[in-house]
Amino acid sequence: MKRYKKEEPLSYTLGASLTFQLLEQRPDLAREVVMHPRMEGETAEKAQTLCKKLGIPFSVSEKPFNILSPKENCFLIGSFEKFSPALDTEKNHVVLVSPSNAGNLGTILRSCLGFGYQDVAIIRPAVDIFDPKTVRASMGALFGIRFAYFDTFAEYASAYGQERAYYPFMLQTDMPLHKTEFAARHALIFGNESSGLPAEFLELGKPVIIRHSQLIDSLNLPIAVSIALYEATKDRL
Amino acid sequence: MKRYKKEEPLSYTLGASLTFQLLEQRPDLAREVVMHPRMEGETAEKAQTLCKKLGIPFSVSEKPFNILSPKENCFLIGSFEKFSPALDTEKNHVVLVSPSNAGNLGTILRSCLGFGYQDVAIIRPAVDIFDPKTVRASMGALFGIRFAYFDTFAEYASAYGQERAYYPFMLQTDMPLHKTEFAARHALIFGNESSGLPAEFLELGKPVIIRHSQLIDSLNLPIAVSIALYEATKDRL
Repeated sequence: MKRYKKEEPLSYTLGASLTFQLLEQRPDLAREVVMHPRMEGETAEKAQTLCKKLGIPFSVSEKPFNILSPKENCFLIGSFEKFSPALDTEKNHVVLVSPSNAGNLGTILRSCLGFGYQDVAIIRPAVDIFDPKTVRASMGALFGIRFAYFDTFAEYASAYGQERAYYPFMLQTDMPLHKTEFAARHALIFGNESSGLPAEFLELGKPVIIRHSQLIDSLNLPIAVSIALYEATKDRL
Repeated sequence: MKRYKKEEPLSYTLGASLTFQLLEQRPDLAREVVMHPRMEGETAEKAQTLCKKLGIPFSVSEKPFNILSPKENCFLIGSFEKFSPALDTEKNHVVLVSPSNAGNLGTILRSCLGFGYQDVAIIRPAVDIFDPKTVRASMGALFGIRFAYFDTFAEYASAYGQERAYYPFMLQTDMPLHKTEFAARHALIFGNESSGLPAEFLELGKPVIIRHSQLIDSLNLPIAVSIALYEATKDRL
């Protein structure tokens, strides 16, 4: 196990519960599990037994922890092959235009899975979905999400836009979220943490605003996404 | 400026926009501003001018950055006196029972301000609201919030519970958030990130659930709080 790099084919699950998510949900991707020498007890046994059962190499060593997680309270690391699922054409999508924060992206994936939006399109430039910080913040949700990167929104639209209504979330509209009726097949579109969506998205679909007080500039991105997903699904869940 | 300690009377704003929030919203609390030698241009001038106008000591030094923000992209630090506002008896409250993560608490404060819940009660044991990580994640919202710590929920209730309806957010109920009618004066109550609220809260008010899919264990705490605030205020904002 070596320092994480975007260009390399492997990423890591830092922490016991995250590594169990990997082993339980995507054992086909798991390549190796390393345990810290100071880890013991039931969880340690469970990890070893599960790896043996799945045929995944298991070892005890401190070194990968110094490289991958020097400051964290982490005693189990898994490595896994990066994967590239395709989106489901029939399902509703979340589209993230240039998300820049790894933790935020992970938190968004967790909410997407929580509200039944399992298809996430990401428009570049954007943070790396396999960054171990994203994997960690997703609490394993990454393994249950279909996602795909696109160079431009137009590229996404030509691949998945057929018979799909677009709802860009923007401040420059007065259509509030709770009065919006979402079409049967849709994409909810969100901009970058600092800059939001470019004005051109106003013309591209039915813009929606999540109203808030004037005392803050904007809502945190994962929170805006989650509120939208809640509102769009609350009668179904 | 020295390493942050819970016991000491000062906390810090790490970063330029946060420090401007301090100077603009609570100049009465600000004690000192230090700029990194590598900071220059308009923002640097603005900081210096504003401090001069407000009579707040301003200096240029690298040392506080090494102590307080060794790894971050931060070029301006303010120090401020901790304060202890009282809650407003007439307003709706958010009650956080044993929140444990500093960043989460800051994100929650930002949402509270965004949805007009400016009164936040915190039940111990709990993270320190003046932790610079909380201040930072709040993006300055801390300076617009009234908050108070209590040793037990009973202590909060005896001080602020008169004619107030309680809505504990819990998984052990089938009353969904979007069907809940909130009483005119209320408290929305949320548990710890890992353990949620103790079962005794089921008897203490009208429990509410934010429904989500079985594919995740729970929603992230700031997200659950924000969804609740959105739903409770959406007809007013």
